[in-house]
Order: sequence, then C-alpha cells, then structure tokens
Amino acid sequence: MAGSTFGNIFKITTWGESHGKAVGVIVDGCPAGLSLTETDIQYYLNQRKPGQSRYTTPRKEDDSVEILSGVFEGRTTGSPISLIVWNKNARSSDYSEIAGYYRPGHADYTFDAKYGFRDYRGGGRSSARETIGRVAGGAIALKVLESCGIHICAYTRAIGPVSINPEHFDEEEIFCNPMYMPDAEAAKKAEAYVSEKMHEQDSSGGIIECRIQGMPAGIGDPVFEKLNANLAKAVCSIGAVKGFEIGDGFLVSTSCGSVNNDAFTADSNGHITKKTNHAGGILGGMSDGSEIVFRAAIKPTPSISRTQQTVNKQGNNIDIQIKGRHDPIIVPRAVIVVKSMAALAIVDALMLNMTARIDYLTDFYH
Amino acid sequence: MAGSTFGNIFKITTWGESHGKAVGVIVDGCPAGLSLTETDIQYYLNQRKPGQSRYTTPRKEDDSVEILSGVFEGRTTGSPISLIVWNKNARSSDYSEIAGYYRPGHADYTFDAKYGFRDYRGGGRSSARETIGRVAGGAIALKVLESCGIHICAYTRAIGPVSINPEHFDEEEIFCNPMYMPDAEAAKKAEAYVSEKMHEQDSSGGIIECRIQGMPAGIGDPVFEKLNANLAKAVCSIGAVKGFEIGDGFLVSTSCGSVNNDAFTADSNGHITKKTNHAGGILGGMSDGSEIVFRAAIKPTPSISRTQQTVNKQGNNIDIQIKGRHDPIIVPRAVIVVKSMAALAIVDALMLNMTARIDYLTDFYH
Amino acid sequence: MAGSTFGNIFKITTWGESHGKAVGVIVDGCPAGLSLTETDIQYYLNQRKPGQSRYTTPRKEDDSVEILSGVFEGRTTGSPISLIVWNKNARSSDYSEIAGYYRPGHADYTFDAKYGFRDYRGGGRSSARETIGRVAGGAIALKVLESCGIHICAYTRAIGPVSINPEHFDEEEIFCNPMYMPDAEAAKKAEAYVSEKMHEQDSSGGIIECRIQGMPAGIGDPVFEKLNANLAKAVCSIGAVKGFEIGDGFLVSTSCGSVNNDAFTADSNGHITKKTNHAGGILGGMSDGSEIVFRAAIKPTPSISRTQQTVNKQGNNIDIQIKGRHDPIIVPRAVIVVKSMAALAIVDALMLNMTARIDYLTDFYH
Amino acid sequence: MAGSTFGNIFKITTWGESHGKAVGVIVDGCPAGLSLTETDIQYYLNQRKPGQSRYTTPRKEDDSVEILSGVFEGRTTGSPISLIVWNKNARSSDYSEIAGYYRPGHADYTFDAKYGFRDYRGGGRSSARETIGRVAGGAIALKVLESCGIHICAYTRAIGPVSINPEHFDEEEIFCNPMYMPDAEAAKKAEAYVSEKMHEQDSSGGIIECRIQGMPAGIGDPVFEKLNANLAKAVCSIGAVKGFEIGDGFLVSTSCGSVNNDAFTADSNGHITKKTNHAGGILGGMSDGSEIVFRAAIKPTPSISRTQQTVNKQGNNIDIQIKGRHDPIIVPRAVIVVKSMAALAIVDALMLNMTARIDYLTDFYH
Repeated sequence: MAGSTFGNIFKITTWGESHGKAVGVIVDGCPAGLSLTETDIQYYLNQRKPGQSRYTTPRKEDDSVEILSGVFEGRTTGSPISLIVWNKNARSSDYSEIAGYYRPGHADYTFDAKYGFRDYRGGGRSSARETIGRVAGGAIALKVLESCGIHICAYTRAIGPVSINPEHFDEEEIFCNPMYMPDAEAAKKAEAYVSEKMHEQDSSGGIIECRIQGMPAGIGDPVFEKLNANLAKAVCSIGAVKGFEIGDGFLVSTSCGSVNNDAFTADSNGHITKKTNHAGGILGGMSDGSEIVFRAAIKPTPSISRTQQTVNKQGNNIDIQIKGRHDPIIVPRAVIVVKSMAALAIVDALMLNMTARIDYLTDFYH
Repeated sequence: MAGSTFGNIFKITTWGESHGKAVGVIVDGCPAGLSLTETDIQYYLNQRKPGQSRYTTPRKEDDSVEILSGVFEGRTTGSPISLIVWNKNARSSDYSEIAGYYRPGHADYTFDAKYGFRDYRGGGRSSARETIGRVAGGAIALKVLESCGIHICAYTRAIGPVSINPEHFDEEEIFCNPMYMPDAEAAKKAEAYVSEKMHEQDSSGGIIECRIQGMPAGIGDPVFEKLNANLAKAVCSIGAVKGFEIGDGFLVSTSCGSVNNDAFTADSNGHITKKTNHAGGILGGMSDGSEIVFRAAIKPTPSISRTQQTVNKQGNNIDIQIKGRHDPIIVPRAVIVVKSMAALAIVDALMLNMTARIDYLTDFYH
Repeated sequence: MAGSTFGNIFKITTWGESHGKAVGVIVDGCPAGLSLTETDIQYYLNQRKPGQSRYTTPRKEDDSVEILSGVFEGRTTGSPISLIVWNKNARSSDYSEIAGYYRPGHADYTFDAKYGFRDYRGGGRSSARETIGRVAGGAIALKVLESCGIHICAYTRAIGPVSINPEHFDEEEIFCNPMYMPDAEAAKKAEAYVSEKMHEQDSSGGIIECRIQGMPAGIGDPVFEKLNANLAKAVCSIGAVKGFEIGDGFLVSTSCGSVNNDAFTADSNGHITKKTNHAGGILGGMSDGSEIVFRAAIKPTPSISRTQQTVNKQGNNIDIQIKGRHDPIIVPRAVIVVKSMAALAIVDALMLNMTARIDYLTDFYH
Repeated sequence: MAGSTFGNIFKITTWGESHGKAVGVIVDGCPAGLSLTETDIQYYLNQRKPGQSRYTTPRKEDDSVEILSGVFEGRTTGSPISLIVWNKNARSSDYSEIAGYYRPGHADYTFDAKYGFRDYRGGGRSSARETIGRVAGGAIALKVLESCGIHICAYTRAIGPVSINPEHFDEEEIFCNPMYMPDAEAAKKAEAYVSEKMHEQDSSGGIIECRIQGMPAGIGDPVFEKLNANLAKAVCSIGAVKGFEIGDGFLVSTSCGSVNNDAFTADSNGHITKKTNHAGGILGGMSDGSEIVFRAAIKPTPSISRTQQTVNKQGNNIDIQIKGRHDPIIVPRAVIVVKSMAALAIVDALMLNMTARIDYLTDFYH
C-alpha cells in the first residue's frame, strides 16, 4: 500500500532515499494563514542533522530545507507544502559491498523478500534520512500546536544503563549536551558509556521520553482512534523503536487499582484535575487535561564495525564487517523525530475534535 | 472523526454500548468464498464471555452472535458481514448513581469533556462489551489467516508479580485455567494473587503475550505502515492497554548492537533464517519470516469496591464506592481481544502485500 | 476493498441484502448532542418505501427503522449510530430461477465474475434495498445540515420525454404526486407515459435534479476533493445513475466563455453574489455561495417482463421472462436517495472546512 | 482536509502552484519492479505541454520531468516516486492586477472565501499546471495498465457544435491535429470554430471521450466504490469538467428497458459477451468485460480578453480585461488529463480486486 502518508486531516507524505537525489515531504491539510519560513523548519532539522558530535555519523550534510509550494508572502495558503532537502554527501561507493548480503538488524533482507530487490545504497528508503521528512512536517505541526497553546518536550531519558534523575530535570539543558538529556550529570555518564561502546566497536540503545503540556481535555476518540493508539503507531513507525508505553506503562502490570487509579479533585472554582498521573494524561483514549507522558524504547544501532555473521544473496553463510559512516547511538538524533511524530498525531486529533459536538457546527455556521 | 473503524482493506466497524439494545460489528472487505458459520465466531466470543469464573463479572450474558448479512449458503459473499449480539442482562439501575460523578481510571470525565454528556450506563461505549465486535470481527480474520497457514497464539504472561515460566509453556493449557496462562503452576499462583486482591477490594494488572507463527517474510511496509506500528495501534486501541513492545522491547535500551542484532544463517538449501529473534519477527517494518512476538501491558481494573476520592459534575470533591458488576482482573478476558486485534492487523497487511510487485499484477491479470 | 463506507469524518457503512434478515447502516462521526428519534429517520424512509403507488413494486415492507446505539435520552452521543430495518416480505422463491442465468442490465454477471458466486435472491447486495441504509444515514445528515441553515430539495425533473416546466416549479407539490415532480401537470403526463410503458411490459428512465440552498461560500477543496467531484461520486454510486452534471452541465460544451462566465456583483453593503449561475454554485471545487444545482440521469428499470435474450451459467444462449416484483420506473423512489447522498457529501465537506484556517483553530482552542 | 491525494492503494499526491518554484507529484503504492524512465513520463507530459499550437497559451515551458526517488537501476523499488517539474517561464507580474479582484468563472473568490487570502499568481493552485502532477502520476499508472493488457484511448469528441463522426474514427489521427480529434475533417472544422471564438475574444467548450479496452470483468465494487463512481470523481476533479456520463449517459432518461438492457450472448466456447454496450462496460459498479466508454463535458476557458463585469476585494463593481497568457480552448490539453485520471482510478480498482476471493489469498500464500 501507499505506506508513506501519515495523518487524516493534517497529512504528511515523505519520500526519498539515503543516496538518491533528495529527500522530502508534502504537508497537506495545513490550515491557511500560518506564518511559516524555512528558518522555522530548519531549527528542528538542525536537531537531527548528522555530524554534530563525535557520537553521530561523520556524513556531512547541511540538510538545508527549501519550501517549494504552499507558502505565499510568508504564510501558508492551505495548499500542499512541498519541502525538499538535497542529498549532498552521498557516497554510494561505500555501500556497493552490502548489495550482496543482508546486514543483521537491518531491513535489507525484508526489502528483498517484499519487493524482489532493493536500493541498497545507505539503506535506501529505510535510512534514517527518511526521518528528515517527518521532522520537516513535524516542524509545521509544532507551529500549529504552539498557536493552540500546546508545548511538547522530548528528550533522552536513558542510554544503556544510564538514566536521568527526574529530580535534576532541566528542559534548558536538553540541547546543551550531545546526549540530549535534561540532566547534565547523567549526560556525562551516558557519554562515557557510549564512548566505551564505540571503543568496543559496538553500539547502545536507550529510552526517549516525551511530555505534552497544555492539552485540553477530550482530544482523541474512544475506540480505534484512541489518542494513545495513534501516538503508539506514530512512534512505533520510527525505525528503531521496539516499545511504547504511556503513563506508568509496563509498571501497571504489577500495580493494583487502588494505586493506579488517579483520583479526581476540584479546586474552589470547580476546576477539575487529577491528584496523580499514572494514566499519563489519557483516559479512555481521550486526553484528560493532565500532561501526556510517554516513552519509546530505542534499539542499539544495528550498524557496528565488529565482525558479524550473516548470509549473502546466494544463500552462503559469511562473515562481514560493515563499513560506511554510522552513529554509535541513535537515541539523541531520534529525540526530535519522536517529538515530530507526537506533534503530527496531536494536531490531527485536535482538528478531528472540532466536529465532536453539534454546537460546534452550529456556532461555526451560525 | 468516525473512530469506530479499523483496517484498510479488511475493515471492521464496531458499534453499541454496554446497556443499549445490542452490540455489533460490520466486517467489510472479507474475501468471498470463505466458509463461515455462527459457530466459528461463537467459539472466540465464548473466550471473552463474562461469568465464566469467579474472577469475572457476574453479569450473565450468553453473547450469542447472529449473522445478519454477507454470508450465503455457508460462505462469505464479499459483501459486508453484519454481526449482532443482543444485550440481555443490562441492569442500568446499577449505574444511575455514576451519572453524577467521574469514576477514577474510567473515561467518564473525558467523555463529558469531549461530547458534553455521556451514556453513563455501564461505561456506555467505553465498556468492555465494545470488544465483542472486535472479537467477532477478529474471528473472521483468524479464519482467513488459518487458510493462509498463519497461526496466532495469545495468552496471559503475567498477572501482578506472577509470571509464567517460559520453560513450562504449554499452549494446550491456556484455556484450561481461568487465568488463560500456558503454565498451570503459574496460573494457580496467579489465582491466589487475584483472590487476595479481591479480598482487599482491589484489582490487578498483568501482561499479555502474543505469538504469530507461519508468517511469510516481507509483510508490512517500510515507513508509516510498519507492521509493528499497526500492531501497536491495534493493541493500544484496547481499553486497558498502557504499553506495547515487540521482541526484546524495552530491554533493548540496555542491550548493545552485538547482542541485539540477530545473525542471519542459511541451511544447505539456502533457506534463510535468523539464529536469534531479539527483533521479534519484524525488521524495518516488514516481517522477517521468524515468529512475531509482542506483549501488551494491561492496567488493573479501575472499578474497585474500595472507597475512592473523586469529583461530581457539580465540581464538589466526594467519596464514592462503585457498585455494579466488575472483573477483579481484565487480563484473561482481554487475551482474545489482543489476539483478534493482531489478526485484523495481519490480515490487512497480507492483503496489501499482494500488490507489492508488478509481477504479482501481471501474473494475476495475465 | 471494503467498499461499503462513504465519507471521511461523517461516515456511513451500509450492509444487508434484499432477501437477508435485515438491512442497516452504521453512522459514525455524527456530532454529539443532535436531537434524534426514529421518527426523524422514518420520515425519509417512507419516501423510498415500496408499495405506495401502482408505479412501484408490490413488495410490502413497512421499512420501520430501529435505533440500536449511539442515541441516549433523545440525543446523539458521538458514538456510532446503528440503524436496522428488518426484511419482512422476502419471497426468495421468486428468485430461485434467476440463480441460473444472468439478467440483462443487472449485476448478476459481474458479481459472479468478481466473487465466483452470488446471493442471487432479489439481486442480493445490488438490490434497491441497499439504499435503505443510505437514506437512513442521509436522514441524520439532513438534520445536521438543517441545524446549519442548509436546505436540500430533490425531485424528478424528467421521466422519459416528459420534463417539468421550470416556471411551474412548486416544491410543495413534489410529494403530492407519485412521480415526485414539482409540477402537477408534468406529473400527470409522466404517469400516462409510465402507464404506457407498463402496458408494453417495458420501463422508463428519467432525470433527478437537486438544489442545495443556504451553502456558505468556500466549502469543498480545490484539487481531488472538489465538492462537485464528491457529489459526482456520491450520486454515481447509486445503482441506476449513468450521468451526473452540475450547473449547465453538458450544455457548456457548446457555450462560450462570455456566456458561461457568471459575473460577480456587489450590493451596497459589499455583499457579493453572481448575476447568473451557469456554474451551478461551485467554482474551483468550492461552493461560491449560490444555489448548488446538479442533475443525475437514471436508467430505465432493467427488470422488465418482456422476453429477453441472455446466457445461463452453463454458457448457453436462452430466452427469459423475469418474474418477481419490480418497479416500472426507478426515478421517484431514487429522489430521496439522491438527496441523501448529496446531504452526506455536503456534511462531510462542512466538517472538513472547519480546519481550513489557523484562526479557526486558535479561536477554538484559545 | 488534505485534498491533494487520489487513490487508495496506488496513490498520487500533487503539489505546486502556477507561479511557484515547481510543481510535482508523489506516486506511492506503485508496485516494485516496473521499468520506468523519465522518457516514459515525458511522453505524456508533452501531450499537455503549453505552446504547441496557436490554440494554447504562449507560456513557454518545456515541462521536463525529473525523477527524484523510488526508481533504482531503471526499475521502481516500491518506495514513493517523487517527480518534479520546475516552473521556468513564470511571469508573476502579469498577475499582480488580479490580486485585487475576482475573475468570473475562476476560483479567485472561493479561495478567498475558504482560506482568507490566496496565491493569486496565475491562479495559484487552481492553475492548469496542477494537472502536471496528475499526468506524471497517470503516466506510471498507464505503464502498469499496459503490463496488464489494458489500453486507454482518450480524445476530443466535440468542440463547441463540432462533433467527430464516429464512422471516421481513427486513433492514429488523434495527436496529428491540434484539436486531438480522431477525425481529421472534424478537427479542421473545430479549428475554424476556435479561431472564430479567438477573433471574438471569446472561448469554447467541448466534450472529451475515453475508451478503456482489455478490462477483465469484475473490476470495481458494488456499493460506494463502484468503478463508475470512482471514474466520475476522478474526472470531475479536473478543473473545467461540468459533467460526466458513462455508456449512453443522459440519453438513458428517454430510453426504455427493452432498448437499454444489453443482451448477454455466448459463443460456442461459452465465452460471454454483450450484444450491445449501452451500459458503457460497467454493470452494478463492476466492469462487465466490454469496452468502458465515458464522456466529460469541459467548460469554455473562463479567461477571455473581452471586458467583463466583476467585483473587487473592496466590494466595488468594476469592469475588467484579463491579461496574461491563456488557452482559447482547454479541451485538447485536457485529453491527457482525463486519460491519466481514468488510468489512476482503474489501477487502484485492479489492485483492490486482487483480494476479492479467499482463493486468491490461499493461492498467493499457499
């Protein structure tokens, strides 16, 4: 199927391969009148850009985005917004070797199984460069959210065994360290851990956490289009994600109702909140007005330079050593991708919610 | 939005409330010629039917399904299949009290926030009875999968702190104990744990695991429609699910590439398999031919008879004691719901895959 | 594909066959808070009910609709609305003969070609009874439109060579004659024409016209989701429709720009209208604030009692005489179906339009 | 809504404005392994390219297409195919004047009504240049159809009062005359008629006809996704189309059943065909194996150089004379657009049909 589109009303369609001419995205369904420049988008693309620290691939790409349509005199027109980033540092020769075998932990084998052959250069469509389109589209979603008073904060919660200390949480710190952790001390330890893995020609996994503030209550739907279900799909559609949990997540399995239930409470104005937030801000598929909190488990980069066993296309067992340019840790660069996917899911739900009551229509079309 | 439909080609649309006249589902896009009777569907409905053990709600419903359309002379016709289950033991009076306040851990508050009012009887649309439609639709999906050689096995992996011992795994055992565990010994311990919680007027959570065998490689898509992303959405759209993970799941965060990568290996016929299955059967969003393994975290039943604090519609803080008929543990009855949702996601992906290559079309329309 | 669903936000899914147990529809995405009773829906179903004049099939069905879900205390809840009509006068024996051959002008042959076999009783899924679901769903859409100040008027414009005289147009007259024409004199002539065709064991076609008043400007989209494109699909999805045109329709082919262009004009308050309406109320896919006018061409009932040539399933050329109960003219009963499909397309477009500008979102989520 | 996407499995998303940097399309869901070069696509783009005769706008664009993704070593990979055409001869200054008023017959007014403002340069998104994306996407659909033995032929049937003589039909002739008529004599007369309109500073409408040969029976669906309904939507989504009809179309209104029904007949091998084709190749929404024939009514170009009355944004009545570069007749350049949209609708239906029977699945996944 045409699996490159995400969203119902606010829709993005990404395209492009790691070593093709360019990568890009069409954002369709963006409301008209939103102020938008390339700088707005570049800000987020820079957060995932490679080559920014010794923990990311040395591939040099400035990842400059160009707006090709849908914006006129600085504002969105309601027409599809086409965004493009040219691939400049493609070095396909690095990859000619992998054409003949299947890298463990990669999609090489499954691509061949599905399509009969593949664009093997740099992972082709399954390259992390595909996420450029997500981040560029997400940047626009984030601008829409901002104008609705909604703020998303995503960061590295853990790398390998090193977790942040929630008491040291400092949002300002996030982009001040190469681990994108909101805790400078933990970030240092994480750097040391990643360095160790690099030295061992190995790689590390981690956990990304995302908090969404300012959500009105009632966003999302009660059955298949639960807000948490759409967040789960959005986040699990990112290459290296192996798990998704909201609120207390897997811990609920050992909890009990009397603990896990969040008591409602009203202040003297009758304003309703919850005393705790085990639910993570969503009840019955709809936002409850609390902060939404979810986490994603990110696997270790499959590209490691250690010798690995695998099979070639001829069906022979072989040993390989992967060359090319790779990240020893995916987690930091994936932070903005998680944030982007969350923004896209939330914007779509906000839009769908605008027709939830007949009064909304009669007020609009009085 | 119309959030009651799941699937792209093989689509189900569920409807109905806990204390309305009936609940049901329309299955649209089922291939013609599939042999189908009400017995095929009833078999799975019986697995989620209430009142089967002391650990489930005493509400008495036989949950008899009736086929209203789409089947002719014992076979599906390709037209929508309408399935209905009448609500017989609705006791709305039990619920008149809850009209006025918001039960912790339930969707009462978010329904009011979204829609302005709600059908409060028995949780209305957010009742577990909504899953009857999923299971009835899933039963048909399971028949389609069977005819393609695919087998799904779901079961309770853990209840509270009690986990199965994978070495004692016995598929036959699953429906022989009220915990739906594939390990009789663990099931006994789990029963004891749940009994304890019941005694404490409390409830327990747990973990459901699902294994999909016989999957061909290449099913699913590489970007937004990753098979794992659709499984995540399918499973997280079930009421009590707070987390989803595939393969090693959250454990990958502390693993490293050299361990987490599954080496490919070929036998003497050139048939390719993986030596391990940390990935859980999906690479790059497409099945890799291994068993697919995922888990869902299920929260403790929010309806507990203990006194709880909450807020009424007037915005006053009050203490409540929930009456009505409830399950002290959702997990066992949710097993077949998880299995059904998995089946629906897989069938849809199998169908979409049939147009992945131009050869498939030219062979079909030679 | 699951081809039984229409709409994006306001969605209907119809099900049921002519001689099955029942027919029905799920309306999903209806806003909460709309006052709705079975009487509201029955009103429109009665307009398509058979057996009301000598020009319709003598099959006796009261077509009583029952609401099974989605309405609580007289108002829609935002959950799917399940509507059912039981088939009471099914006489399948009338149809056993047609199991073996392909009726000209019917879908018998194409059903077998697609699905390998068919529910042949009364045309199965392709029976006019399928439109019960459309009309029941359309009734709800019409209520939504009413609350937004939009009025739809559909009627028979022509039967065979007999057309209404636009100068005699009288909306009140429409349901006062069995032809559903807004011109009593033309209706008399049309009756005479249909009687003649009945006498000749033949049938007649006609044209249905539809006018939509009170449309705000700007509804619909500029590219693939043009309002006229969605109206065209909605209307051409009705069984007997062979053509669709909007405004001057096919006449534009012989017109010229200086005539076909509608001049804009402003009154002293700066309120903009068009001096003429050749466009039929839509420009560039979006409503222009004028009345929307479209027409549908309806083919003659294919079931005629005259001897016809055809082929049986064994591939032999045979002569047949169709028995069973049939309408000599489909047009009048299709009027409410056209109106329903128009209402569904318009409601969906109104809802989608509510997110067209960023101001709409910021005002809503201030 | 995101209204720039067409199709379910084989999906195109177009983007771009008349005077923006470029226009383009993403084709997603194209099967892997299809041989594809830029030349394949350019062939069709050249048929709609401006500046080829005195009857088209003098705007000079070579409309060279570039493939940016989804093709590797000359074959489609199954990943989205991004196609771009740069706008080279944009002369926005021609259009600065129209920023302030609403051109009759154009979308200027409705764009402002919907979005609050518009990219007025050359009609912005509603320019005929938007159809470049449709034709580029359609070119790929046509290649897929070719490989399935399906051939589409579209041409000008009438311009103003000048119709082709069906007895002189010559497919080879179509692109040999600037009117794209399959009848050289009619084309000459049409040229004379258009010249006359040009001399009068006026424009002409016409009719495009499309024939689809080699269709297997059973393609399409019986209810809302009827093949004719999707063709209607596909074709009516083209800017200037005001009507769509299939087979005998509007003529059925004055026909009768005994004439309009197409008798089935079998040859000595039991192969079934129809003796006539009043139905236009579709019965009950599914192809019947005959040639599919439909027609589209195209309105006269709204841009005429004659003085016209309209309103400016301040709400004053004014007289205008439209400058810029325009076609006196849209019909010939729209021929390939109609053909492209037909191809897209057909490919999608072919793909969806591959899962219509359970045998198809079991054979595929034996």
